[in-house]
Amino acid sequence: MKAFMNEDFLLTSEASKKLYHEFAENMPIIDYHCHLIPREIAENKQFRNITELFLGGDHYKWRAMAAFGVDDKLIRGDGDDYEKFLAYARTISMAIGNPLYHWTHLELKRVFGIDTPLTEKTAPEIWEKANKLLATEEFRAKRLIEKFNVEVVCTTDDPADSLEYHKAIAKDASFTVKVLPTFRPDKAIKVDFEGFDKYIKTLEGVSGVEIRTPEDVCKALRVRALFFNENGCRVSDHGLDTVPSGEVDMDKVNEAFCLGMKGEKMDRETADSYRTYIMIYLGGLYRELGWAQQYHMNAQRNNNGPMFRKYGPDTGFDSISDELISAKLGKLLGAQEEKGLLPKTILYTLNPNANYVLASTAGNFQTEAGIAGKVQFGSAWWFCDQKDGMFEQMRALSSLGMLSTFVGMLTDSRSFVSYPRHEYFRRILCELVGSWVDNGEYPADWDALKTIIQGVCYYNAKTYFGF
Amino acid sequence: MKAFMNEDFLLTSEASKKLYHEFAENMPIIDYHCHLIPREIAENKQFRNITELFLGGDHYKWRAMAAFGVDDKLIRGDGDDYEKFLAYARTISMAIGNPLYHWTHLELKRVFGIDTPLTEKTAPEIWEKANKLLATEEFRAKRLIEKFNVEVVCTTDDPADSLEYHKAIAKDASFTVKVLPTFRPDKAIKVDFEGFDKYIKTLEGVSGVEIRTPEDVCKALRVRALFFNENGCRVSDHGLDTVPSGEVDMDKVNEAFCLGMKGEKMDRETADSYRTYIMIYLGGLYRELGWAQQYHMNAQRNNNGPMFRKYGPDTGFDSISDELISAKLGKLLGAQEEKGLLPKTILYTLNPNANYVLASTAGNFQTEAGIAGKVQFGSAWWFCDQKDGMFEQMRALSSLGMLSTFVGMLTDSRSFVSYPRHEYFRRILCELVGSWVDNGEYPADWDALKTIIQGVCYYNAKTYFGF
Amino acid sequence: MKAFMNEDFLLTSEASKKLYHEFAENMPIIDYHCHLIPREIAENKQFRNITELFLGGDHYKWRAMAAFGVDDKLIRGDGDDYEKFLAYARTISMAIGNPLYHWTHLELKRVFGIDTPLTEKTAPEIWEKANKLLATEEFRAKRLIEKFNVEVVCTTDDPADSLEYHKAIAKDASFTVKVLPTFRPDKAIKVDFEGFDKYIKTLEGVSGVEIRTPEDVCKALRVRALFFNENGCRVSDHGLDTVPSGEVDMDKVNEAFCLGMKGEKMDRETADSYRTYIMIYLGGLYRELGWAQQYHMNAQRNNNGPMFRKYGPDTGFDSISDELISAKLGKLLGAQEEKGLLPKTILYTLNPNANYVLASTAGNFQTEAGIAGKVQFGSAWWFCDQKDGMFEQMRALSSLGMLSTFVGMLTDSRSFVSYPRHEYFRRILCELVGSWVDNGEYPADWDALKTIIQGVCYYNAKTYFGF
Repeated sequence: MKAFMNEDFLLTSEASKKLYHEFAENMPIIDYHCHLIPREIAENKQFRNITELFLGGDHYKWRAMAAFGVDDKLIRGDGDDYEKFLAYARTISMAIGNPLYHWTHLELKRVFGIDTPLTEKTAPEIWEKANKLLATEEFRAKRLIEKFNVEVVCTTDDPADSLEYHKAIAKDASFTVKVLPTFRPDKAIKVDFEGFDKYIKTLEGVSGVEIRTPEDVCKALRVRALFFNENGCRVSDHGLDTVPSGEVDMDKVNEAFCLGMKGEKMDRETADSYRTYIMIYLGGLYRELGWAQQYHMNAQRNNNGPMFRKYGPDTGFDSISDELISAKLGKLLGAQEEKGLLPKTILYTLNPNANYVLASTAGNFQTEAGIAGKVQFGSAWWFCDQKDGMFEQMRALSSLGMLSTFVGMLTDSRSFVSYPRHEYFRRILCELVGSWVDNGEYPADWDALKTIIQGVCYYNAKTYFGF
Repeated sequence: MKAFMNEDFLLTSEASKKLYHEFAENMPIIDYHCHLIPREIAENKQFRNITELFLGGDHYKWRAMAAFGVDDKLIRGDGDDYEKFLAYARTISMAIGNPLYHWTHLELKRVFGIDTPLTEKTAPEIWEKANKLLATEEFRAKRLIEKFNVEVVCTTDDPADSLEYHKAIAKDASFTVKVLPTFRPDKAIKVDFEGFDKYIKTLEGVSGVEIRTPEDVCKALRVRALFFNENGCRVSDHGLDTVPSGEVDMDKVNEAFCLGMKGEKMDRETADSYRTYIMIYLGGLYRELGWAQQYHMNAQRNNNGPMFRKYGPDTGFDSISDELISAKLGKLLGAQEEKGLLPKTILYTLNPNANYVLASTAGNFQTEAGIAGKVQFGSAWWFCDQKDGMFEQMRALSSLGMLSTFVGMLTDSRSFVSYPRHEYFRRILCELVGSWVDNGEYPADWDALKTIIQGVCYYNAKTYFGF
Repeated sequence: MKAFMNEDFLLTSEASKKLYHEFAENMPIIDYHCHLIPREIAENKQFRNITELFLGGDHYKWRAMAAFGVDDKLIRGDGDDYEKFLAYARTISMAIGNPLYHWTHLELKRVFGIDTPLTEKTAPEIWEKANKLLATEEFRAKRLIEKFNVEVVCTTDDPADSLEYHKAIAKDASFTVKVLPTFRPDKAIKVDFEGFDKYIKTLEGVSGVEIRTPEDVCKALRVRALFFNENGCRVSDHGLDTVPSGEVDMDKVNEAFCLGMKGEKMDRETADSYRTYIMIYLGGLYRELGWAQQYHMNAQRNNNGPMFRKYGPDTGFDSISDELISAKLGKLLGAQEEKGLLPKTILYTLNPNANYVLASTAGNFQTEAGIAGKVQFGSAWWFCDQKDGMFEQMRALSSLGMLSTFVGMLTDSRSFVSYPRHEYFRRILCELVGSWVDNGEYPADWDALKTIIQGVCYYNAKTYFGF
């Protein structure tokens, strides 16, 4: 029996251990997609206790507690911080097989040097030890990030954002981590969502472009993209909770825009025409700027009405959508390819059923000499970024494409202590590749293996995004 | 090489063996969903031979024989019982990798103490030995159930059922197993199915409620649910071969009811409005009674016309549907949650593609303090309750939710000797959890592990259903 | 650590090794579905070098190179053959986890006796050694096929084909491999595709049947099927990129035909009615002739417009479709079964999500005494015929049906050196079955195991197709 989460955690063969410890473990981290709040970095936030650090904003943990029957007062409510931590300790000790079990213990190890499994019994001691450390300068936001050898962090930002905090962070010479913005123009694209008209007004104001037509939306977004580019942005992000049709009918594009500006309803086809139109334009723009675009698909959001009204989005009431995407995604990317506008693209799905669809779709658009893995099947995302999910994503990618060109892991996280997920990913990567070597499926060519492992852990992302 | 199906069958690590033998093996069985015929229990049925016991009504076995090319005369037809047993022996000896291979041999072991693999050659000897035992009092229906340390059996019953056999069983003081009814009101909900009008008349008669409107259907079902509740019912069951839309338009609800009572056709949207309406009502009713509701999804039934006309439903001509369910199911549960009417709910799918959808959907509705796992991702069902299917269901549940709150296994069976499927499940559960402990992914905390294993095997169901 | 791809490649248990080396390894090959060009066999083609042999027409390899960022000039373009080989060597050395890695090295081993891993460094030496051999008589097309102990090859042919090359091959007494045609009438069925009218004219000419109605299409296809039958054809093939509805409305059938003959557009329902009509007729015809029909589903073709216009179909721009098929396929097969017209049928999917749907659908139509596995869940196909995909297909088949009746592997290939994929499949089959024996899940009954393994490798196909 292996010791609990020791240095060879998740590594079973000698080859896997060698790959991890010699090649992967010490690579810097490029966290090219997350949801950290730039202000909190700029202000070098100090955490009042481990409850704020661990449970603040982390809807993964909230869901586990809720599934365990914990009162919402101790989850999202105004319960006492210590009581919340105890409730989490009770929950996590029973969360066998859940990635939170591993993440929590990696966080305790790597952030606080605590090796004790968290249970109701050990909670008081951990509470005290962690809080004592959190009160020190060494455990403020910037230092937490630095602890993990992070080279680049890409936050997720609205085109209307002033990027003031990114600028402030960049000015702090004592902080060597690059914190770059990501261009996420969802609000300008979701023409059939409440608040579209208001958002367009905001965009008009901040861009200085008078917006009367869909073309004007493109112009305004261009102004903002150039501004983001000046501030180090190299990547965009699109939350495609439904994938647009990939078909453009200019009458419908204009109709959708007019209806959206009046806050009126429209059918899916009309909205999709507008959405496709904007996204094709943006593809070309990203290509021009050398950016990569990210598509996040198959999320079904805000399923619990009462809780949505109480707490808003991103609070633990989202799930996996089984929407079919192969035909629409093929058309959307095909339309960009048709006009020579397809930029580097990363395709993510929240539904592992789509793994093979994405891995094979990516292969349809690898037509640019010199860019390895131009269209990427992105890392296992959200509900999928657990052990099984990561293995499955990498098995699909390697079976249908080229694992060695993969840009690898990102946290997608709202937490300052989620970098151990990169460690988790690297262990899984090395276990997978090592098992092939151990089983005689790939030669023990350590130079080639080093190239592959370090590529996926670090160098591929560095090259791909141009950081 | 391990001996064939020995005491450590399916258990590979020391941890798995310890978990199974020390914690799981001797737990009582709560079989909270099956299709046993209450009359056969009440009458303490005696089986004329092993063919009747093993092959009578078991469409799993029929399908295997048919796939092996056996003449239907020896499957569903009027062939000789011994010839049928020989044909089954020939089939099963070639059914490598099929769960029937294991179930059959566990049945032979646990029911008859026979350890010999069943082949055409060993069949005559097994035929004789088993039939001799079946002729004794110790092998009648009630004794067969008791042999397996069963505490509760929930049959599946129509709301119009008199429950006379359940009452008769309850009166037999010599039989200590609780045999409780399950409320399955499919016929009152399938407004677009042949026979709806006739069924409503039956319901009217048995409930004493004059049924003129959909509201009256609810009233009549309420009367029957209260009657079921008095007779120990704690759970309902819904066969959602298609998931209703989750949207209610009262005009359509009424229209659907009128058309249904006239036996006329209607479109899916109209029928769904009625179905949703009734199911929301029932959700509230179940909640009031403290019941759990079960949703069984993704079955595609009666695909072979000629065989359906010859043998009727449930005879081996059903398969897996790939219908999309995430959006509709989200709305249906969301509509119940919206009104505070959502009861304890168990979601089952026949299509393992929906595992992650169900596991994540369950997480959207865990909003009731004190009920661990209020919304459950149910056990691998029917085509999925084999080794791979069970592993996958538990991996999905643990990765996306809380395995430790799982109410575990049920047989869903028409057979008196299917209880070894609980053994099969427990071995798989212990193998999965044991592999985590063995691999250092969870500490060797045997107290916590005992709580988890015995919870999933027995205590969780006991608490959840309130048996 | 196991040596790289040694004699026990992919075999981990003693049982697996025994099964492979004693039962599987030396079985003849029946390659009942491929895309070899009959002319190239008849002419006993000589290859100018390893680039032509390995990379000519092989879109699997092209896609890998493209994903690695290789210039299309060295993939599909007019680049130098040696440069192309070097580019492929660079690519393959980084293609860890991709089936091409294994196929390429099995091809080098089994065709040329080369054991060296292919890298940029070893490429020059391999180039020379292989080309020297390719210049000899022993490495021309017919000898390459014979090298692999191939008994039957079924090519894929249009009903209008003269089969002149098949006849020529049959006359060559020195060549003992049966090369048989396969009837693939897609062009007569795809009424809504460009060129339908032209194709019908061709069919008219070659069949001598005047075609004025859909009935006439059937008559003409019957003439051609009889001709194919005389020339050894025993199997048909259908590329169902979308599955027809399974519903026939004769008005729509006729309308579709008229529109198709005028080259006009039609809706999906109309086209599906015609497609279903023809396919039901063909089912009966195949049944009459004792043929098996093959359905290939879930391919999404020609996704890259510019590349399609440049290179045409089957050049590496296809991917996996997530179209739902369970309901339509159930109706299509059900309609044939209804009329007693359902022939032996093999169902393939390109989307592994449909594995369980197909495995369970097959079970609905096993109604013909004496034909084991009449409806087959076909081998893992195209993007799925890699290690994981094959394991999953066989796990689904064995869990839901009868693996022992499986007709097994085919290459589906355009290459003369893809027969090692049968070796790959056999190793995976033996590893899977051996792991069950090793783990005590099936007895070490070597006679039964020999029957199962040799059945799946060879005898089942021989019996099923009647070769």
